[in-house]
Amino acid sequence: MQEEAQHIDEELFDEYSFSVDQLMELAGLSCATAVSKGYPLQSLLKSPPRVLVICGPGNNGGDGLVCARHLKLFGYEPSVLYPKRPSKQLFQNLTTQCEKMDISFLTEMPEVQHKPQRSIPHRSHCRGARCFYFILHPYCVIPMYVYTIMYVCWDVENGCPDGIQPDMLISLTAPKKAANHFKGRYHFLGGRFVPPALEQKYQLNLPQYPGTDCVHQLN
Amino acid sequence: MQEEAQHIDEELFDEYSFSVDQLMELAGLSCATAVSKGYPLQSLLKSPPRVLVICGPGNNGGDGLVCARHLKLFGYEPSVLYPKRPSKQLFQNLTTQCEKMDISFLTEMPEVQHKPQRSIPHRSHCRGARCFYFILHPYCVIPMYVYTIMYVCWDVENGCPDGIQPDMLISLTAPKKAANHFKGRYHFLGGRFVPPALEQKYQLNLPQYPGTDCVHQLN
Repeated sequence: MQEEAQHIDEELFDEYSFSVDQLMELAGLSCATAVSKGYPLQSLLKSPPRVLVICGPGNNGGDGLVCARHLKLFGYEPSVLYPKRPSKQLFQNLTTQCEKMDISFLTEMPEVQHKPQRSIPHRSHCRGARCFYFILHPYCVIPMYVYTIMYVCWDVENGCPDGIQPDMLISLTAPKKAANHFKGRYHFLGGRFVPPALEQKYQLNLPQYPGTDCVHQLN
Repeated sequence: MQEEAQHIDEELFDEYSFSVDQLMELAGLSCATAVSKGYPLQSLLKSPPRVLVICGPGNNGGDGLVCARHLKLFGYEPSVLYPKRPSKQLFQNLTTQCEKMDISFLTEMPEVQHKPQRSIPHRSHCRGARCFYFILHPYCVIPMYVYTIMYVCWDVENGCPDGIQPDMLISLTAPKKAANHFKGRYHFLGGRFVPPALEQKYQLNLPQYPGTDCVHQLN
């Protein structure tokens, strides 16, 4: 399944001549849209609600940077934790775009008022992980609060059984095997760019996206 | 005004480090979304409705290719007329993406059942024109039909006074001066990627996009 996802990515780049910039832009936009649909601005107590986007060094970290930028345009207040920054120009550019949009980059995990029940899984728990996280933590003065961990693109095969249970899962391109382990509230499909011929070749049986939406809620 | 639009583009690339791929993807997606909102699938008689996208040799032609691809994913049946194809790799890739999505490329203007009242303006009428056109022509067996010319990004200064009057105008990034000449039904703003600091610097006074929408209807 993970192998299949890699093959699809390879075909998108090699056969269909997509650039990483293009697909990353659409993937990141999907993630921001899913976040906004799951946790609408008006449902959150603090305005603008703060979102922490934790980005790994791979392409999914790039998706995270794109997501942070669109979240900012949607009215959220994203911060980015991006400890391992690859030297590739693309990632540097994505970082600049965020910085110039006044998105703050943190050097360490921020202190949060309310800890999640389980700690964030270590890298070793998410090997091969197309993983970056969102943490929404709109602090507020009354004891009720929203604290949500969204775990974007779980370990493709196994989810993260020893780690936290995310509240939202966003499957990019197609739902992965790990989605079977998901017990949270929101499962979104994003990345509306798969050519019909590729969908057929890999028998992805994607559901129909509504209208012009770039995400589709699966549960 | 046209000069201002150029300055904004330059800043987006030089200061904000956006790539052409990224912004073209978002611009083309905006156009496809505007088309879909103005002429929803279910309102058109033929299914899937045919759309002709006429692309010039510049970056707006690239937006048109991206738009055609998203229209295909939205359920339309786009064809592309792309007489002058630049040799740049980006445009070749965008063409490949369309071809592999079974979007047909025409070698000349198709015969249409009902001609528009005025002919399509010559290039000389749209100098400096960020112009590509959409023509929706869902033929159908009953005499009622939809024939709409959408003229995407008019001549930035003057519109196209001697040319056809478009039914839809899509202003990318910010409304241009030419929008004052527009008498059609739908005026959409697209290209939701302008950083707030840039909006302030150029006093664009952009309206607020609704929710996560990538277009905003101005009329």
